[in-house]
Amino acid sequence: MMDQICIPIKNELGAVEEIISNQTVSSVPLASEVVHYTIGNGGKRVRPALFLLAARLVGARGNSLASIAAGIECLHTASLLHDDVVDEAHMRRGRRAARLRWGNQISVLTGDFLWCCATSLILEAGPPALFSVIAKAVMKTAEGELLEITKQNDPDCDQDTYIRIVKGKTAALFEACGSSAAIMAEASSQYRTALEGYSHNIGMAFQLMDDVLDYASTEALMGKSTGSDLREGRLTLPLIVASERADAVEKKQIRDIMLSPKPSEDEVLAVMNIVDKWDGVQATRSLAFEYVEQAKAHLAVFKPSIEREALLSLSDYILEREK
Amino acid sequence: MMDQICIPIKNELGAVEEIISNQTVSSVPLASEVVHYTIGNGGKRVRPALFLLAARLVGARGNSLASIAAGIECLHTASLLHDDVVDEAHMRRGRRAARLRWGNQISVLTGDFLWCCATSLILEAGPPALFSVIAKAVMKTAEGELLEITKQNDPDCDQDTYIRIVKGKTAALFEACGSSAAIMAEASSQYRTALEGYSHNIGMAFQLMDDVLDYASTEALMGKSTGSDLREGRLTLPLIVASERADAVEKKQIRDIMLSPKPSEDEVLAVMNIVDKWDGVQATRSLAFEYVEQAKAHLAVFKPSIEREALLSLSDYILEREK
Repeated sequence: MMDQICIPIKNELGAVEEIISNQTVSSVPLASEVVHYTIGNGGKRVRPALFLLAARLVGARGNSLASIAAGIECLHTASLLHDDVVDEAHMRRGRRAARLRWGNQISVLTGDFLWCCATSLILEAGPPALFSVIAKAVMKTAEGELLEITKQNDPDCDQDTYIRIVKGKTAALFEACGSSAAIMAEASSQYRTALEGYSHNIGMAFQLMDDVLDYASTEALMGKSTGSDLREGRLTLPLIVASERADAVEKKQIRDIMLSPKPSEDEVLAVMNIVDKWDGVQATRSLAFEYVEQAKAHLAVFKPSIEREALLSLSDYILEREK
Repeated sequence: MMDQICIPIKNELGAVEEIISNQTVSSVPLASEVVHYTIGNGGKRVRPALFLLAARLVGARGNSLASIAAGIECLHTASLLHDDVVDEAHMRRGRRAARLRWGNQISVLTGDFLWCCATSLILEAGPPALFSVIAKAVMKTAEGELLEITKQNDPDCDQDTYIRIVKGKTAALFEACGSSAAIMAEASSQYRTALEGYSHNIGMAFQLMDDVLDYASTEALMGKSTGSDLREGRLTLPLIVASERADAVEKKQIRDIMLSPKPSEDEVLAVMNIVDKWDGVQATRSLAFEYVEQAKAHLAVFKPSIEREALLSLSDYILEREK
């Protein structure tokens, strides 16, 4: 489905892949190898597609767009490399996480290297204001992830707090894709606001659907283990909703599994059942649906065009994707 | 001694501290706390001092200099936070490494956060070319550290390879201080080349003296354990020199300690004695001295001034410092 959505930007996305391959080569072979392994395969390229479609929608054209899209994907991948350290993630995009193959040290440094590649790409292709916007988004991403860590063992982490975390860790970079598109087109403020509103909301929906898929998808499709959030003690919305609705005994079961370094399969299954019983997944899916509705509403200020249609389809894809 | 060297830039360095305190505050209290802990205490501020003195030497003035100096120190501290993960360092600047107090996850993310603070500071205070130069230096730093990791178990790592590592991991950011100073003053190319040459060479000397101090200093002064490079299997110049000069039996002892996850105190002592026997520390000190001589030679293009005197003293300080 992503393929169909991306028809209007097929050439640009081809250029993005080429730029990523050519501009992330290091004089240190190991750096190139880890970058190639991490960025080379299986990414959905949602952020570059979002940026390119939004930029074209408001009339931006030219080769620099592909460079910026490539830079955004590099930043996202850098943060995945740092996340893999952070989350003790076992799988990423269907392959072993770089961290497990090369170790924490190399993941962190290759992330740093990739970040600098992104910086060069974006600074050379766009005005300084564009880079500022993106750098601020990266800062919010790190802050969102830090907030998430501080709330990891907090039984009182509620939906509002979780939404604040998601705004940082995921929606900030999505929103920056919208801002960047507007900056590249020198779009007037109403169109910039619309693109930012659209991008922010699909970012929120994207993360919530990620949380849903962790409870509902199968490992083969998702490229990471189902229930892995639960196993790794990561509190996401399906569990928060269930916890708020659960009775005292169930609440205690949830609290216990969150504190356990390595919960048993029985414990995991029991809590999965509690989430199921209290409709944690459905509630999260409904909220994602609301965000997508809000995203679409922001596109109403634009007249119909193939790019607008593609962005509408992109928001549907986010709800429907199975991985 | 740093205090005396810094007399011409006393006010600016005061402003740097204030900017660091005010511009690294996060909406997530944990981020602010880790930043404050890591950057707040005991740093020698060599890079800000270098940048400020060099900038003043070529006639740059104004409040933006302190912001850039603060940004450079933030970048350096971000890379220390990532290094602590990388190096499994046990102590840093005389206090427990942030990694050991808060864990890998939080060190990496706080480093990322601090990096973004630095980006904002530098982008707002200087022209885009300045940020480009600094970003490229950060890239070289990461590449130098990655090269170091790939050579960690390589018994054939020779002096040339080690010098290449040091050029990346330490001298690149020093050199960028010189470039940045020249850019802020719009200095002509001969002065820019001189400042870059000076800064690069004192960066080389700084790292080599760091390696010397790890073998020669006492724990109380240095703020990290003596012999810690050896204990952690880190190959630095004193050991490379000794290894090149050693006989077959000693070579094997060195090779064994580099492969051991936790060498005994006896093994450490034995290899320290081999380094001593073959003058590994003296050879490293002599090379540092040569770099400082080259650094000073670059300052000959400038007429005498208090800033030039201070930079000359700074290069002597690098050879004489005991921590």
